[in-house]
Amino acid sequence: MIAESEKLNAHMEHAIRIAKKAWGQTHSNPMVGAVIVEDGKIVSEGYHERSGGKHAEIIALESYKGTPKAETTLLVTLEPCSTEGRTGACTNAIIHSGIKNVVIGTLDPNPKHSGAGVTFLESAGISVTVGVLEEACREMNIIFNHWIVHKRPLCALKIAMTLDGCMAASTGHSKWITGELAREDVMHWRRLFPAIAVTQNTVSADNPRLTSRLNDGIFCSQRFVLNRELRDLENYKNYHLFSDDFKSKTIVVYGMNAVKDRVEALEAMGIQSWKVSESEGKLNIDEFLNLCAENAIPGVFIEPGAQLATHLIANRSVDYIYIYQSPKLLMDQKGHSLGTERSSQLMNESMHLLDVKRELFGEDTLIRGYLRK
Amino acid sequence: MIAESEKLNAHMEHAIRIAKKAWGQTHSNPMVGAVIVEDGKIVSEGYHERSGGKHAEIIALESYKGTPKAETTLLVTLEPCSTEGRTGACTNAIIHSGIKNVVIGTLDPNPKHSGAGVTFLESAGISVTVGVLEEACREMNIIFNHWIVHKRPLCALKIAMTLDGCMAASTGHSKWITGELAREDVMHWRRLFPAIAVTQNTVSADNPRLTSRLNDGIFCSQRFVLNRELRDLENYKNYHLFSDDFKSKTIVVYGMNAVKDRVEALEAMGIQSWKVSESEGKLNIDEFLNLCAENAIPGVFIEPGAQLATHLIANRSVDYIYIYQSPKLLMDQKGHSLGTERSSQLMNESMHLLDVKRELFGEDTLIRGYLRK
Repeated sequence: MIAESEKLNAHMEHAIRIAKKAWGQTHSNPMVGAVIVEDGKIVSEGYHERSGGKHAEIIALESYKGTPKAETTLLVTLEPCSTEGRTGACTNAIIHSGIKNVVIGTLDPNPKHSGAGVTFLESAGISVTVGVLEEACREMNIIFNHWIVHKRPLCALKIAMTLDGCMAASTGHSKWITGELAREDVMHWRRLFPAIAVTQNTVSADNPRLTSRLNDGIFCSQRFVLNRELRDLENYKNYHLFSDDFKSKTIVVYGMNAVKDRVEALEAMGIQSWKVSESEGKLNIDEFLNLCAENAIPGVFIEPGAQLATHLIANRSVDYIYIYQSPKLLMDQKGHSLGTERSSQLMNESMHLLDVKRELFGEDTLIRGYLRK
Repeated sequence: MIAESEKLNAHMEHAIRIAKKAWGQTHSNPMVGAVIVEDGKIVSEGYHERSGGKHAEIIALESYKGTPKAETTLLVTLEPCSTEGRTGACTNAIIHSGIKNVVIGTLDPNPKHSGAGVTFLESAGISVTVGVLEEACREMNIIFNHWIVHKRPLCALKIAMTLDGCMAASTGHSKWITGELAREDVMHWRRLFPAIAVTQNTVSADNPRLTSRLNDGIFCSQRFVLNRELRDLENYKNYHLFSDDFKSKTIVVYGMNAVKDRVEALEAMGIQSWKVSESEGKLNIDEFLNLCAENAIPGVFIEPGAQLATHLIANRSVDYIYIYQSPKLLMDQKGHSLGTERSSQLMNESMHLLDVKRELFGEDTLIRGYLRK
């Protein structure tokens, strides 16, 4: 006999799976999946496809053709909304459906609303269970969870390094630290984030596409090139970012001290740009993130070199970090690595990763988590 | 219905479990476990307790009280020996027992004997299966497997580091990089290895015991202190290594250029010592390992600082490496880390870990594997 909790877990797993069909496509809304279970089987399901689209619960309820029995249960990965949004409150729809059991993966991360949906359902005589596969339900919405609380984009940073912390040889050479499987996994995260940022150095050296090339096609998020001084414009026409089918999705971010001629040259090429202030010869990343917020971009995936990564981490601009680690030792003090010459005194000056997830890709490991601030 | 292979796996798992009762106690022999299965059940079992003791198969056969049926099966983690040793060839005992089915975890790692036991059994009409839980059966004998082939000790190195490769703050402070669970796990490996080595720096700074303090008591391997110049002798009486119940298990390794007074002072204290040559102001570690070999020590677990670790790895003296890694970033270029200023050109100059195993201890990970030479 399968325990009741195992059945619930299996149904919630299915709800998570269908929620993820909209991976990266729901911004600034969360991914949500819902299933209706009757006689131990899923008889209806739905997921939130895109911002402005119907909520998962509504789709599941609309496609439910039965008459709820006492044990009929709606499972939903995220607490149903109790406020009238563009699509009407989900709690009302659940109450009207006659379903008397609701199982919720995780509560609304917005402190203003967290628990309100549960209270509303319970006050209508519905039995509510909260916290089935809670971690997985919360985890898939790292961008939304941050955005809804802070109204600032989740600033995520992706780096690859050897076991001894090297991101490149002393020459800057870094192809490749990790194997193919790990590099493919990056595509998955590029697709999750609504925006990706790299430095001009990376563009000049690697001419990247920054697209997400997955089995179901090529996908392109908003692309940012951090180019404080507007260097290398003469080669822009040769770079994928400014010439491919998605070139309208590339924005150059430059510093307020960039010379006027270059700003004009950029404009003449019809390339979109954002201007931000500078301090200590660096772009003001917080201002860049504020601009993202103003433009309703809830998350930015930055793929930096060692220098920018160090700056972002030391500056506490990073919320979340992805480290692809290969089981190699470069054994070179001159290899590019994180950090400044700050003369640390004690080991507990280290910054911690929290809520750490680890995943294997061939011989490499992805280690990811929040950076404690 | 459980598939036949799953049953075999479960029985082999039991054989591995009982083999490990002798964890670290069988040197220079391997750990081996054997079970006899009849009617789907284990009816007899045995494991090799110590060098010179009975082999696992012999114990299992001696305690088997039945008469073998056609399906009665002996499972053993390691290929039975076919040469007459101190305890008689196991293959003969199996043939005489009348058991007609033998399942072997992994072949004898000694190329001279590998497969000979199988051939011998098969030529006597016994059905032999090889390779059930092969990896786990081989893995538990990393020391023996190396020793029997190379007749040199497996030189293993244990270090702890942050994600960005720091083994200590710029001041040398390193307590603690990892959490309690990871530090407890070290005990497990100290007990596996017949010898442990640290530098005088570590002794002076930390006054370690280097004992293995586990639930079933305190255990002490052979302890080596690498003290090229015989520094700090005046404090030796205060150090655990030279004053505890196991002080007779501590040997000081010094360089041929150590001053005579100090050598005499060491001898006057009644402390055992080994003298090895020096090159470039460092102890000749290969000579130390040769001395271990001469003294029938099949494995050495070295717990070094960043400097010795770098020397050992760069010098290709290390066979196996244990890295306890915490999800922290020290972000200090002056933090102690591996490597010399060797100006690497390409990322593929990195050294690879092979046969990598990963294990979680709280928030920390143990990453271990062979260092490709």
